[in-house]
Amino acid sequence: MYGEKWTDREKKIARRVFDGAVAEELASTIADFKARAAAVNEPEDMWALEQYLRDRRRDIDRKYDYRYSQLIWVFGQLLREGRIREEQLAGLSEEKLNDIRRASGR
Amino acid sequence: MYGEKWTDREKKIARRVFDGAVAEELASTIADFKARAAAVNEPEDMWALEQYLRDRRRDIDRKYDYRYSQLIWVFGQLLREGRIREEQLAGLSEEKLNDIRRASGR
Repeated sequence: MYGEKWTDREKKIARRVFDGAVAEELASTIADFKARAAAVNEPEDMWALEQYLRDRRRDIDRKYDYRYSQLIWVFGQLLREGRIREEQLAGLSEEKLNDIRRASGR
Repeated sequence: MYGEKWTDREKKIARRVFDGAVAEELASTIADFKARAAAVNEPEDMWALEQYLRDRRRDIDRKYDYRYSQLIWVFGQLLREGRIREEQLAGLSEEKLNDIRRASGR
């Protein structure tokens, strides 16, 4: 399964979906962070955001791993989280789509 | 110099000045942090605030050390940074005031 070859066309699709998902997750994280920062009243609220940023940064770093050996898992997770829709992956081989669905746990 | 005794009256003065300085520095840090957060446009701006918060937290933790063996240095630093004024320390012994002035490097 993880030795599957990605054709140039598939790589293009993967790249577009991947980049779009990263951009959306970063944008929504920024919006969420700004709302949390604006709501800070006490020092404790502010210091808690240091941990929040660390966790979000690590989570995003780990999740968005653009290696062809990892992409099935990555898209599976994004699908599970509702960050991408299956239609966006149209053009990938049936085998990959099945693997991604399975990885998504749906 | 660091074995100097603090009378009850001096402790009261020290506590009030110390607590006031902490409260002011925390409030100004919150204001500064909120302005930085509101100005975030790119993910990099946001991630940089993780380090900013870590540095500010450590700096404040280290600076505000309410041990009688440290207070001369603490007040010296606060004086140097313009966070307290010498008049606020009125009531401390002349020896302590001299030591604080000296510690302030003024």
